[in-house]
Amino acid sequence: MSEQPLQGDPAARVLVAGASGFAGALAAEIVWRHPRLELAAITARADAGTRLDRLYPRYRVPLTLEELDLDGLEQVDAAIVAYPHGASARVVAAMRGLGLLVVDLSADFRLRDLPEYEKWYGPHGEPDLLDGAVYGLPELHREAIREAELVANPGCYPTAALLALAPLAAEGLIEDVVIDAKSGVSGAGRGGGEEMHFVALDENAKPYKVSGHRHQPEIEQELGLAVTFVPHLLPLDQGELVSCYVRPPRELPRGELLELYADRYAGEPFVELTEDPPGVRDVRDTNLCRIHLEQSGGRVMVFAAIDNLWKGAAGQAVQNLNLMLGLGEGEGLR
Amino acid sequence: MSEQPLQGDPAARVLVAGASGFAGALAAEIVWRHPRLELAAITARADAGTRLDRLYPRYRVPLTLEELDLDGLEQVDAAIVAYPHGASARVVAAMRGLGLLVVDLSADFRLRDLPEYEKWYGPHGEPDLLDGAVYGLPELHREAIREAELVANPGCYPTAALLALAPLAAEGLIEDVVIDAKSGVSGAGRGGGEEMHFVALDENAKPYKVSGHRHQPEIEQELGLAVTFVPHLLPLDQGELVSCYVRPPRELPRGELLELYADRYAGEPFVELTEDPPGVRDVRDTNLCRIHLEQSGGRVMVFAAIDNLWKGAAGQAVQNLNLMLGLGEGEGLR
Amino acid sequence: MSEQPLQGDPAARVLVAGASGFAGALAAEIVWRHPRLELAAITARADAGTRLDRLYPRYRVPLTLEELDLDGLEQVDAAIVAYPHGASARVVAAMRGLGLLVVDLSADFRLRDLPEYEKWYGPHGEPDLLDGAVYGLPELHREAIREAELVANPGCYPTAALLALAPLAAEGLIEDVVIDAKSGVSGAGRGGGEEMHFVALDENAKPYKVSGHRHQPEIEQELGLAVTFVPHLLPLDQGELVSCYVRPPRELPRGELLELYADRYAGEPFVELTEDPPGVRDVRDTNLCRIHLEQSGGRVMVFAAIDNLWKGAAGQAVQNLNLMLGLGEGEGLR
Amino acid sequence: MSEQPLQGDPAARVLVAGASGFAGALAAEIVWRHPRLELAAITARADAGTRLDRLYPRYRVPLTLEELDLDGLEQVDAAIVAYPHGASARVVAAMRGLGLLVVDLSADFRLRDLPEYEKWYGPHGEPDLLDGAVYGLPELHREAIREAELVANPGCYPTAALLALAPLAAEGLIEDVVIDAKSGVSGAGRGGGEEMHFVALDENAKPYKVSGHRHQPEIEQELGLAVTFVPHLLPLDQGELVSCYVRPPRELPRGELLELYADRYAGEPFVELTEDPPGVRDVRDTNLCRIHLEQSGGRVMVFAAIDNLWKGAAGQAVQNLNLMLGLGEGEGLR
Repeated sequence: MSEQPLQGDPAARVLVAGASGFAGALAAEIVWRHPRLELAAITARADAGTRLDRLYPRYRVPLTLEELDLDGLEQVDAAIVAYPHGASARVVAAMRGLGLLVVDLSADFRLRDLPEYEKWYGPHGEPDLLDGAVYGLPELHREAIREAELVANPGCYPTAALLALAPLAAEGLIEDVVIDAKSGVSGAGRGGGEEMHFVALDENAKPYKVSGHRHQPEIEQELGLAVTFVPHLLPLDQGELVSCYVRPPRELPRGELLELYADRYAGEPFVELTEDPPGVRDVRDTNLCRIHLEQSGGRVMVFAAIDNLWKGAAGQAVQNLNLMLGLGEGEGLR
Repeated sequence: MSEQPLQGDPAARVLVAGASGFAGALAAEIVWRHPRLELAAITARADAGTRLDRLYPRYRVPLTLEELDLDGLEQVDAAIVAYPHGASARVVAAMRGLGLLVVDLSADFRLRDLPEYEKWYGPHGEPDLLDGAVYGLPELHREAIREAELVANPGCYPTAALLALAPLAAEGLIEDVVIDAKSGVSGAGRGGGEEMHFVALDENAKPYKVSGHRHQPEIEQELGLAVTFVPHLLPLDQGELVSCYVRPPRELPRGELLELYADRYAGEPFVELTEDPPGVRDVRDTNLCRIHLEQSGGRVMVFAAIDNLWKGAAGQAVQNLNLMLGLGEGEGLR
Repeated sequence: MSEQPLQGDPAARVLVAGASGFAGALAAEIVWRHPRLELAAITARADAGTRLDRLYPRYRVPLTLEELDLDGLEQVDAAIVAYPHGASARVVAAMRGLGLLVVDLSADFRLRDLPEYEKWYGPHGEPDLLDGAVYGLPELHREAIREAELVANPGCYPTAALLALAPLAAEGLIEDVVIDAKSGVSGAGRGGGEEMHFVALDENAKPYKVSGHRHQPEIEQELGLAVTFVPHLLPLDQGELVSCYVRPPRELPRGELLELYADRYAGEPFVELTEDPPGVRDVRDTNLCRIHLEQSGGRVMVFAAIDNLWKGAAGQAVQNLNLMLGLGEGEGLR
Repeated sequence: MSEQPLQGDPAARVLVAGASGFAGALAAEIVWRHPRLELAAITARADAGTRLDRLYPRYRVPLTLEELDLDGLEQVDAAIVAYPHGASARVVAAMRGLGLLVVDLSADFRLRDLPEYEKWYGPHGEPDLLDGAVYGLPELHREAIREAELVANPGCYPTAALLALAPLAAEGLIEDVVIDAKSGVSGAGRGGGEEMHFVALDENAKPYKVSGHRHQPEIEQELGLAVTFVPHLLPLDQGELVSCYVRPPRELPRGELLELYADRYAGEPFVELTEDPPGVRDVRDTNLCRIHLEQSGGRVMVFAAIDNLWKGAAGQAVQNLNLMLGLGEGEGLR
């Protein structure tokens, strides 16, 4: 069995819980290839006993999925948790009780407002932890993430939408906004039954959750304003594009607009401003977000493309973990 | 060689000019299967001498593409012209001079305002014909089409966008609208070089012509208002979805909205209002437009799906021809 | 609710049992559009209560799926049964007991040899019916099908492989044959769980059931010889291609080869010999089988393309039913 | 502009000529990321003046394509040449005259027999160089590659077919073999016109070059026996699967077969024997070849999957260059 290609002593021993799903499996793969993180264990409920590289032959992790044993985490320093919302809170609380640093990929700690959470997701199992959780979008909350012990990894749509819109929102330049989002199928997760059957999605494209998607309150919380948000499902695997149509409160000269974004994202390792409209394939299998700006008829249009499994989930989780551990933010992510 | 499955004497002998492109080839196929239209000839420049069913093995037309000979049209009653804009006007004028009924799939006769046409497309070769041309969206201009001798077949995006928005526009219920359009690749035509290469489009999705697409003035002309319109290219063949985000000038009760559309489209053979958001695959290879209505946060959202080659081009051309010839509007289109 | 477009009195009232699966749903759709068959009812276990055009929005059948009630079939003349093997035998037996003509899409009555059936599929519930069943490949058994009361519709791979190879086999011209088969995903049915998830199949291609696929004995029975048969799964929806590599016992002049196939398939409504290698897309949504012949290095290569849901399942079922009822063989199938 | 992530002094300064095509662009990308190779320049005819990361936004190379200037190569130690066959020979000869190590991706130096080359490709421009060229499949010719100054990089199909069959051929265990090959579209290159249009390939699968593909003599040369070889085109981007059907001259116990391959490929960094049939997606964007063995009815079946752009072209080119330069064989390829 091959060994991890570590460079020197690991900075942390990392558990990936829920590693049989798309995001969890990729998180395990990224940690495995990471030069400074040791992949201590991978767990999953349904597929315990299966080697990850057999479940996902395109990944290289030769470890076997185990059932999570909260009593056996002495050798673990940090955890990436990829559980469904609701199920995640309890596990995260236990891990925090053991002193682990935690990046949680579920929605359980993303919304600061408990009633808002419960409106969209139902009862919250560990509301006391909400206060200490940091919303894990490094481009917005880098310093807080460095100090955090529990980071709520953003949803895939919010990641792209917030990177697209935060510079305008921060300047009060959004009077009204429509976010038309398009996602590849992996964003919907490994379950899903007939709706995720190849035959249902091939050669198809359609809006879904049109009367309200759970990622909307997350976007609104971070922007501080109400948005119209509609997701669409596309016949591709990994990739997400958000097309944002902003009505600003005043005319915005093109130079000012471009400068606003150039300044805001100067030095950001994973945000790129592009001359051409970005395609999702341009960022496939990368942690990048590519952003393009247009103006027409008094509207500002912002297009942002990410890989929903990388910057939209597992890649961002490791980016957050790097920050929490004081490592280089981009280590293991190129 | 098989013969056309005609039922009785044909109502008209039809020429399809430009039958080697995607829309022209499908127009030839639909006319070939039509119980009342005789496919008199098919023409094309580049592929003259090739049988259409060899160029498009999935179609059944056993005729050979010829070069267009304007002196040999005595036996022809009507023409469907699928030429590029600019090249079409001259050919259409010649055919009209010979007395043929013409449905033109190009943009040459869609815009009533000559300066607007020339702004988007360059000089117009036959401006005198503009006045007599009818915009061929049957759901908006059915009676005029019945009387027309030259019909300008709408663009694919305008077809979907207008069917989605016309009921609201007619009542003055659109204060502001964003149209986020998504199209399969066949909408871009058979040419296109590297941009249409499988490898460039597979697993990709991206906005294009973001600073202005030629279908925008067509939509604005028919709605009578300015719109924000951005098209996106999807990795599928046939199918088009428009997602329209309308800000109405007043609150619109859901019952009123649904009734408005139900009344407007009652009896329409090719428009269906759906309970679920429509997927483009639901209308593939049909002449249908499926429309779904939602409301959220003060916005009205209208989603419309068509097959860009059918209702967005060739199918609608035959629908128009049926009207011009006094045939059943849906003949040959089921 | 729309009505069936029947022409005159129906020749038979047809039940489609198991109409919620891919093949059954298409069989219902074809019967619905058929000018001489009345779609009496559609049944399914899991989706009873759902309208078929809601389950499959691309189909037009406005009927609601019911639970099968064997006591309520007085008004039914014939049935197309699309049950899983094993489950089918009992239902077919009951229907035959009521005097219905039956086309069975399962494997239950395809193999004449009971031990062979039980080796591949397990115990047979109604072995007494095997003798009276006719293998429903019209190009091989047309006259027997006309007289049959129970027709076993062939598997999709056998349909393509037998049409490709039967002319050679009949003349003793196959000394050895490799059949490399490639199928779109719909051939695997609507179930399947994670293996049929879009993400597992997109951008993938792989062999499966390499140590033995249940369609092999069916091919061997009808050809009367042993074959090497390996199926592969492709990232497309409908379509099947078999590439057959034949070692003949003697040199075969090209003229003799072409004549053999031309003679064998002269007048066949759904078999076409092609000059170019056939693509599966050329036959999509048709009941056609396109066959192409090559020779190289002493080998004869036969390529055959079908739509696995049409000629490979539902289309062929209606073709068989047309024969059993004395209707035109191609009625409702163009 | 970002700089190359080199570790220490580069072992060689490398030119990639023909870097605008699919294989050349990926070769440039791999060299760019390589810790020990400096990407000295990239050249192309048609796209000179364009930055590679604008032509291929998914790659990271910020260099601009130049026209090749054979007089300006003093600073270059080695070249990867991705020209069309015929055009390559002359350029390679000039580079060899300047003392550069060359890996040539064209077919010009793959066939040792000049008449055989000229039968498939036409006149050869530099036949004198044939003798010194080494066929660049490291698993077969590693030691010769280490000493070589001109390496002919194998075709994509031969790479997969030879890795699948060489162990059997070396033991005289192939009496007869059929190779049914399936490839994604990138294998056909960036040109191709209408045949490579998305609409022509989407939802399609078909055999091509059935009467003789140029990769056949290459396979036959290296195996030392005649083969039946037929390629098929699949609707995916990167990936290639060969299904090999071998008739051995004697019965082959399963244990002997498995041991033969395990011994032959022990220690090979890029060949993996798999328990399950390999999918092309399992090796996407890797330099791996995954091989799976089956036996049935006296036949041995070998399935091999590669990424046609990596192990089938650019990845293997760098693997060869590593060997020629005395670097670790897998450097820059993980």
